[in-house]
Amino acid sequence: MKLGFVGLGKMGENMVENILAHRHEVVVYDLSEEAVEKLAGKGASPAESLEKMVAQLAVPRVCWLMVPSGEPVDRTLDSLLPLLEDGDVVIDGGNSSYHDTVRRSKTLAERGISFMDVGTSGGLEGARNGACMMVGGDREVFLSLVPLFRDMCVSGGYGYMGESGAGHFAKMVHNGIEYGMMQAIGEGFDVLQNSGFVFDHQEVARVWANGSVIRGWLMDLVARAFEKDGELGYLSGEIADSGEGKWMVETALEKGVAIPVIADALFRRYRSRSKDNFSDKVVAALRHEFGGHGFTPKEK
Amino acid sequence: MKLGFVGLGKMGENMVENILAHRHEVVVYDLSEEAVEKLAGKGASPAESLEKMVAQLAVPRVCWLMVPSGEPVDRTLDSLLPLLEDGDVVIDGGNSSYHDTVRRSKTLAERGISFMDVGTSGGLEGARNGACMMVGGDREVFLSLVPLFRDMCVSGGYGYMGESGAGHFAKMVHNGIEYGMMQAIGEGFDVLQNSGFVFDHQEVARVWANGSVIRGWLMDLVARAFEKDGELGYLSGEIADSGEGKWMVETALEKGVAIPVIADALFRRYRSRSKDNFSDKVVAALRHEFGGHGFTPKEK
Amino acid sequence: MKLGFVGLGKMGENMVENILAHRHEVVVYDLSEEAVEKLAGKGASPAESLEKMVAQLAVPRVCWLMVPSGEPVDRTLDSLLPLLEDGDVVIDGGNSSYHDTVRRSKTLAERGISFMDVGTSGGLEGARNGACMMVGGDREVFLSLVPLFRDMCVSGGYGYMGESGAGHFAKMVHNGIEYGMMQAIGEGFDVLQNSGFVFDHQEVARVWANGSVIRGWLMDLVARAFEKDGELGYLSGEIADSGEGKWMVETALEKGVAIPVIADALFRRYRSRSKDNFSDKVVAALRHEFGGHGFTPKEK
Amino acid sequence: MKLGFVGLGKMGENMVENILAHRHEVVVYDLSEEAVEKLAGKGASPAESLEKMVAQLAVPRVCWLMVPSGEPVDRTLDSLLPLLEDGDVVIDGGNSSYHDTVRRSKTLAERGISFMDVGTSGGLEGARNGACMMVGGDREVFLSLVPLFRDMCVSGGYGYMGESGAGHFAKMVHNGIEYGMMQAIGEGFDVLQNSGFVFDHQEVARVWANGSVIRGWLMDLVARAFEKDGELGYLSGEIADSGEGKWMVETALEKGVAIPVIADALFRRYRSRSKDNFSDKVVAALRHEFGGHGFTPKEK
Repeated sequence: MKLGFVGLGKMGENMVENILAHRHEVVVYDLSEEAVEKLAGKGASPAESLEKMVAQLAVPRVCWLMVPSGEPVDRTLDSLLPLLEDGDVVIDGGNSSYHDTVRRSKTLAERGISFMDVGTSGGLEGARNGACMMVGGDREVFLSLVPLFRDMCVSGGYGYMGESGAGHFAKMVHNGIEYGMMQAIGEGFDVLQNSGFVFDHQEVARVWANGSVIRGWLMDLVARAFEKDGELGYLSGEIADSGEGKWMVETALEKGVAIPVIADALFRRYRSRSKDNFSDKVVAALRHEFGGHGFTPKEK
Repeated sequence: MKLGFVGLGKMGENMVENILAHRHEVVVYDLSEEAVEKLAGKGASPAESLEKMVAQLAVPRVCWLMVPSGEPVDRTLDSLLPLLEDGDVVIDGGNSSYHDTVRRSKTLAERGISFMDVGTSGGLEGARNGACMMVGGDREVFLSLVPLFRDMCVSGGYGYMGESGAGHFAKMVHNGIEYGMMQAIGEGFDVLQNSGFVFDHQEVARVWANGSVIRGWLMDLVARAFEKDGELGYLSGEIADSGEGKWMVETALEKGVAIPVIADALFRRYRSRSKDNFSDKVVAALRHEFGGHGFTPKEK
Repeated sequence: MKLGFVGLGKMGENMVENILAHRHEVVVYDLSEEAVEKLAGKGASPAESLEKMVAQLAVPRVCWLMVPSGEPVDRTLDSLLPLLEDGDVVIDGGNSSYHDTVRRSKTLAERGISFMDVGTSGGLEGARNGACMMVGGDREVFLSLVPLFRDMCVSGGYGYMGESGAGHFAKMVHNGIEYGMMQAIGEGFDVLQNSGFVFDHQEVARVWANGSVIRGWLMDLVARAFEKDGELGYLSGEIADSGEGKWMVETALEKGVAIPVIADALFRRYRSRSKDNFSDKVVAALRHEFGGHGFTPKEK
Repeated sequence: MKLGFVGLGKMGENMVENILAHRHEVVVYDLSEEAVEKLAGKGASPAESLEKMVAQLAVPRVCWLMVPSGEPVDRTLDSLLPLLEDGDVVIDGGNSSYHDTVRRSKTLAERGISFMDVGTSGGLEGARNGACMMVGGDREVFLSLVPLFRDMCVSGGYGYMGESGAGHFAKMVHNGIEYGMMQAIGEGFDVLQNSGFVFDHQEVARVWANGSVIRGWLMDLVARAFEKDGELGYLSGEIADSGEGKWMVETALEKGVAIPVIADALFRRYRSRSKDNFSDKVVAALRHEFGGHGFTPKEK
């Protein structure tokens, strides 16, 4: 296949290399000329603008977007749409909100353009060597793109999730599960760390990664992290979040589904970034008021 | 009534003053001579030893223990028991584990001594001016002690909970509920603090303390705490716990009862005291491994 | 004062009776003629339409809305606004989302009309005999309405929370705390119920309601509920929710504040209404797959 | 190697077959003669009693116990110990509490017998074809047993965890993590089920099992479960638990470590088995009391 690819960040770059390795043709565009040139050096056709990218594609055109979710996607679509025509396909491979996807697919459909949402998992390594893709949108278009998905993904690692939005919805749920799993793993090692035994975290993770019920890629990665430093002394405990966990909890509220574990995992991330947490201060103050219990004075 | 009172810490001192104010006679003993003398100056009969305390009481004797839970209770009982005789009553007004209480009541019963467990709530102010008491043990003995409970408690604030251990069990559950309520209040003010509005916490607490669904003593105390400092700038967010919340969760595990909110409230206390939390570090490290996400380096 | 009052449901009816009892004049309107007549019989001036209600008020007019949140508020405002003029005041005493309130206040401000948001707490009894009110909007208007708030609320039970939306925001947080407190209480009685002791729930609640740390209106109500039936045999465990708890969690997500206890309380409500819960089925199926563990077959 | 094997339940049977397949000699004993005969038919040496089993082993003897945790382990040890001598090795491959293990290892050490704790993971398939083993006890003894572990486990799937108890401790933590992971997965599919989209759960699980961040054995098993029935219509949502999750939470309480997600996962299991949940009834009753909110009457 031949396709246009917009957005050459960490994920995008790895995906383009992956596609090229499978002998597809890719016309690449990014706001960063450097990023474009870098991939040109690896076999991609560089484009200086969206116009020039589109001009190199034969109809029906396939354009893959790999840009940050939210406004950047809308902005890219605004520029791209006037250049496309009936029958073309736009793929959003990023972490977009499924609400946005449903909205965008309607707008594009009005112009005869198919909008496919592809939730992509597997990290940078997956992007380069074999990812997992959850695809939403028109089923016929999905089928026409299977040769691409088959090459970009590990065996069995792609599938049709349903109508427009279902791909990003599945990715959001995937990330929610991921939050819960990671928190459970974190809690486990915290108990080991405070056990009174002298555990070698790297050794524990390595053993668990092989043959246990909880084996899987996350455990492989824990083992790898502890290989670098068994006490993780190089980083602080502040955990960032990129928003998909938040969408997951919002969606559960919207649908009335109880997800205590995934929500708690998200809240622990918020808590990890909260210095001098006000909730905790209120509780400490309350204890002092009713019981005359002492408190830890604020550090100067 | 006339009774012996062992243990003149913050709670014990206030309770003795309360009892004296209701014209009962109290013979007081404590390891601290100073504490004994202080209450002697307020009308209590001082005793230099448990022997001398017991010697001043008429049979059937009533001895109230208000000593720290665990080993100190057993130690006091070991010293006290040889001095008592069939028909005497020992009251444990402290925060003992109900398991300990059941065990102790059996030991004392073998010697004909009634062991009554009195879970006491209401903080220092309640101890002095009218407490809440949950009483376990023999019902007849409870009835014989009602004149004392009636005077020490606010109207309606005492009751027979059931056989030995039921009083301390009810107190443990009370404290579990207290943990959950306090955490809910803390979370609420944390949301106010981060709302984007400029709330006057003291004003909010004062309004909520009057006429709202969530009014109650805890809200009165929140209002009082914010009166001192609307930002609680004088204390850190480290929350201690005295063990009853832990017993509550252990008991729920023992009985197979789901108490997610009370357990979470306890865990937030643990978390509040955990510097450079290992669980959080593991999650942060994992994010870095699979997504190449950045992390916050550990502060030097 | 003289004011118009729109919305005579359970809360509205009680509030109008409260206002009348304090010798204010109230012109009442509701879609239900019956509701209007009922209050006319108690001293209110009935109005057959919003037009007729407004016509009976002197400028600057004060109109209190007590209609269901969401669309009904907007619909009422749409009808009411053309009838009002610069300097009039509209009060929303219902459980509106603070986002809606901020939006509406801007619309009304463009026409010179003050929109005040009054979060009202205290249940039906409070509405009738003395409520708690959290007021947002213009401070000068608040001050002009103090004579009304003072009469409708218990002493100390009203206050200015801040600019438009702050009143409803404070009410939303209040309800979030309420969710957490109620769940903590529920969990406590669940542990008592499964304790092995034979607790008299009514007696426990009565004692806790008097002098304990967890005393307050909720505990009074628990005591009242158990007075009717100590086992609550007349109801099922399905817990409804009216949406404020959901907004609270959404807001915490929006602001990045960790509220594990309040969120868990909400999720328990969702769970209570979920028959044949799919999450639980997935876990049960997983146990069966890896360990050959048995499972409970679905009831026919 | 040649070893004795006591306990031929589901796990034990599979493990013996695994050991035999690697050309070790196994003398098997079980209370069930049938279980012994079955394995005799597959190459094991049957023993009619512990005495006869021990008699077939050369010193230093190695005896592997695979009996239910708790009392059965103590009972087996009571019978076995008089038959062993200084230098022999007893392995507990079951899910024993690490507290029990520490206690037992001391008792056996007094008689010169090494007690090794081997936490075993991987389900029935792992037991048969390659498990994961976390080993605690004397390091020298561990090294002497490596030829056995290497054959019974997948490559990399065994390791020395530390002194006596560390193996069972690591297994307990492993199971805690497993609880959290399973609950996260359950919640995810619950959201998919209520999403409004029409997801094919089997397809989603299959895709996630290949290349995603959350891929792993649990996801393979989910895919397998959905392959049988995409709605899991054959089972109810009652989730049993075998006690290791409970120990995990107890241990976290003991060590003061916050594990909200793992505890919530356990509590959801309790909740799943609670009909007409009392906590929920209390909350529903409370709503009714303060707000006059309706409730769902109990079904007859």
